[in-house]
Formats: sequence, structure tokens, C-alpha cells
Amino acid sequence: METNKLFQYNTLGALMAGLYDGSLTVGELLEYGDLGLGTLDSIDGELIVLDGKAYQAKGSGDKPEVVEVSDDMKVPYAAVIHHEAEVIFKQRFEMTDQELQKRIESYYDGENLFRSIKIHGTFAKMHVRMIPRSTPDEKFAEVATHQPEYRAENITGTIVGIWTPEIFHGVSVAGYHLHFISDDHTFGGHVMDYVISEGQVEVGAVDQLDQRFPVQDRQYLFAKFNAKDIRGDIDKAE
Amino acid sequence: METNKLFQYNTLGALMAGLYDGSLTVGELLEYGDLGLGTLDSIDGELIVLDGKAYQAKGSGDKPEVVEVSDDMKVPYAAVIHHEAEVIFKQRFEMTDQELQKRIESYYDGENLFRSIKIHGTFAKMHVRMIPRSTPDEKFAEVATHQPEYRAENITGTIVGIWTPEIFHGVSVAGYHLHFISDDHTFGGHVMDYVISEGQVEVGAVDQLDQRFPVQDRQYLFAKFNAKDIRGDIDKAE
Repeated sequence: METNKLFQYNTLGALMAGLYDGSLTVGELLEYGDLGLGTLDSIDGELIVLDGKAYQAKGSGDKPEVVEVSDDMKVPYAAVIHHEAEVIFKQRFEMTDQELQKRIESYYDGENLFRSIKIHGTFAKMHVRMIPRSTPDEKFAEVATHQPEYRAENITGTIVGIWTPEIFHGVSVAGYHLHFISDDHTFGGHVMDYVISEGQVEVGAVDQLDQRFPVQDRQYLFAKFNAKDIRGDIDKAE
Repeated sequence: METNKLFQYNTLGALMAGLYDGSLTVGELLEYGDLGLGTLDSIDGELIVLDGKAYQAKGSGDKPEVVEVSDDMKVPYAAVIHHEAEVIFKQRFEMTDQELQKRIESYYDGENLFRSIKIHGTFAKMHVRMIPRSTPDEKFAEVATHQPEYRAENITGTIVGIWTPEIFHGVSVAGYHLHFISDDHTFGGHVMDYVISEGQVEVGAVDQLDQRFPVQDRQYLFAKFNAKDIRGDIDKAE
């Protein structure tokens, strides 16, 4: 049976624990999916994978900077999928993120499978942030408290991301993990909240998680984690 | 790159939550590995996969019953791998399980990768238990409190199993999950504790987790889990 496979490189928990060094190239990552998210080496901003291309959104003073990422750049953490919509619906009237996410969930067959999410539309409000480039001695939970945030109004673009079942919290973040990029590639980042004016929502089924590890990264191999602390940090930071 | 892939069908968390119905055949399972463990439909005893064959250990009065499992039987949960030893060592003197496990861990390159475990030897003491066949209205954590237990002395056989990093607790059980089968196939089960007299220990690297879900099982899809409760139940039951 052909399965929809979510490829996850490393765990969000390891990233939170301070393992910011990239160890998989963007070129390799894109072999495993055309839609998804992650971050770059040294947690230098937000990675957005859309239609098989990878973009980086960084904070840069009073506006975000969005650039296409070359294949040789490396990621410490990413999740991508060859997205195939199982449910497609038009959103014809304004909704907050919470309302829309509730509507999206009404199409799920239960909450125990991963999902891929793609929402293209016009957003009355879009509020994003970017993790700033950091060194491993700066703890993620602390870095996360001083991230640049940006707001846009009446912006057209695409939200991409993953929905994760609760039992995988720590490995990924339970619930929604969404990144945004505008159609003109001038605005994007990690989605905090939004109001959609109208758009099209695609929810993709995920049958299988292909979980990889940085098996040749000594820092990863020998890092000491406390899973409970990490789950708490993810709750705070994501 | 050729990777060592751990195949996990369903999550231990879902099993703990009462999803006891088998949905993958043993025949299919054995395509993904020659060593591993799990349980059978209706949590009817312990599944042991050794050298590409599947065995079931059940409690049966004053002794365990071990039978080979036919390919058409179904499992609700299992984890298997094409085991390849990365480290092999001889254990030449008596050790408790805790001592041996400490020795095993001294050969790990860190605690952040899964491992496959195979220990063939003679055991001065082997203490196992078997989960008894149950219906979903019987909660796993309760069933687990009245499992038949068996002890053997000076028994030769194989321990098979998986070591799981802490961040995957809930998806699997953090640390060791081990099952035992005697060479003569008359004794086996879920390993509680043991004393090894002498034997050979193999530790296999795992580069990748291939996590599958019972995507056509409505009970799984729509089950309501509380991940925190489940992690607590696993702590108690395993």
C-alpha cells in the first residue's frame, strides 16, 4: 500500500535542549517532502517548505527577511511530507485561527494521526515570529522569550505545517505547528495567530512517521535530556 | 545510506489506553524485522520475535505456555527490527539484570538513539509475566496488576527487545522493554528481572524509527487519549 509518510529529522525535544547545529542538508530534506517546516543551522530563523522549495524567514529590524535557501544549507530540525490533500475546503468568510482550526479538526477522523496542513488565502491579520540565530549555550526556552514578532494585514500567502497527536509531544509539538510565507515572499515566519479572510484549506493524511536521527552528530548522541522538562519547555515556547 | 530501521506498529500508549484489537498480521509484521516483541490480539500474552519466527507466551496455571504463532494472527502493538549487532560482548560471570543493563549502556554512544537488544545465555534466575487476554473495558493499568508471573532457574534462552530514549516515552516505553524465550520453547514472557550466569550480548544500532498506525481501525482513530495519564500508566505497568 502506498503510504503518506511524514519525514521528521531529529526531534523538537532535542532542538529545545540546545542542539542547534545543522546536520542534514536542505537538498536531502527536500527529497523527502515538498511541504513542511523546521529551522536552519544555529536556529537562524524559520524554515518554510512550500511546493518543493525551501525558504528562510528571519527577523531583521522592523521587518522580516525572507530568502530562498540553497540546497547545501543545513537544518538541525525539520518535518516534511509529500503533501496530498485528503480534505479540501473553501473558507469563504472571516475566521480567527482558533475558529478555523476547530473547523479543520471537524474534518479529522480522530486525533490520533499526524496531519499535514496547507492553507492558502488572504489573511486580515497575520502575526508571526522568528527564532533568532543563537549559540547552544543560550537555552531555547530563554531565546524563545525574546523573539522578534511581526504583524501584517490583508496579506495573501500560505500557511504550511503539521498537526501532531498528543502522545508524540516532545518528539514534535502536540497540536498545530504552522509556518507562513506570503505569495510575494516578503513576509513569513512561525505562526502565532491570524485571522483568515478567505482561502482554501487542505488537510493531508499521514499514515506513517519516518523518524530520523542525527546519528553521526556526537553532540546529539551524548546530549543529556530531561524529557519532562523538555515537554514543559515546548509548552512554553511553541 | 543503508539504515537500521526499527518498525513500530501502533504506540504502546494506544495499547495502554485499551486498544487491544489486532490489526496487523504476524506475516506482515515479520516482513519488517526478525527480532522484537509485542502482544497478540486481545492482549493475549506476550509476543516474542526471534530469528524471524514469532512466538506467543501465555500464562496457563502453574506454568507458561509458549507456542509458535501463525502468520494470520493479528497484533495490536509490536516493534521489530532486522537486528544487526553493532556491539557484541561475552558476559562471563554472574550479573543481576541491573548490573548487566548498566554494562550494556556503557557500550552505547549516548542515550538518544533506540537500540535493539539480544542476549543469549544461561540465566540463574528468570522472572517473567504475561499479560492475560482481556477485553477493552478492562483497563490496561488494572489488568497489569494481576498478571501471572513465572520463575525459572538455570534456564538457557534469549532475551529480545528494544531500548527507547526517554523523549519517546508514551510512544514506546523509555529504557528497556524485553521479552524472553527459552531455547526449548517451553518458557517465556515479559522480562521482569533476571540473573545471568553467562552469555553473549548483542546491541544493535537503530538509525530510524518507522512508526506505523492502525489507519483503518476506527477504534484507534477516534479513541480519546490523555498522554500524561498514559505515560503514568506505562510507568506503573511496564
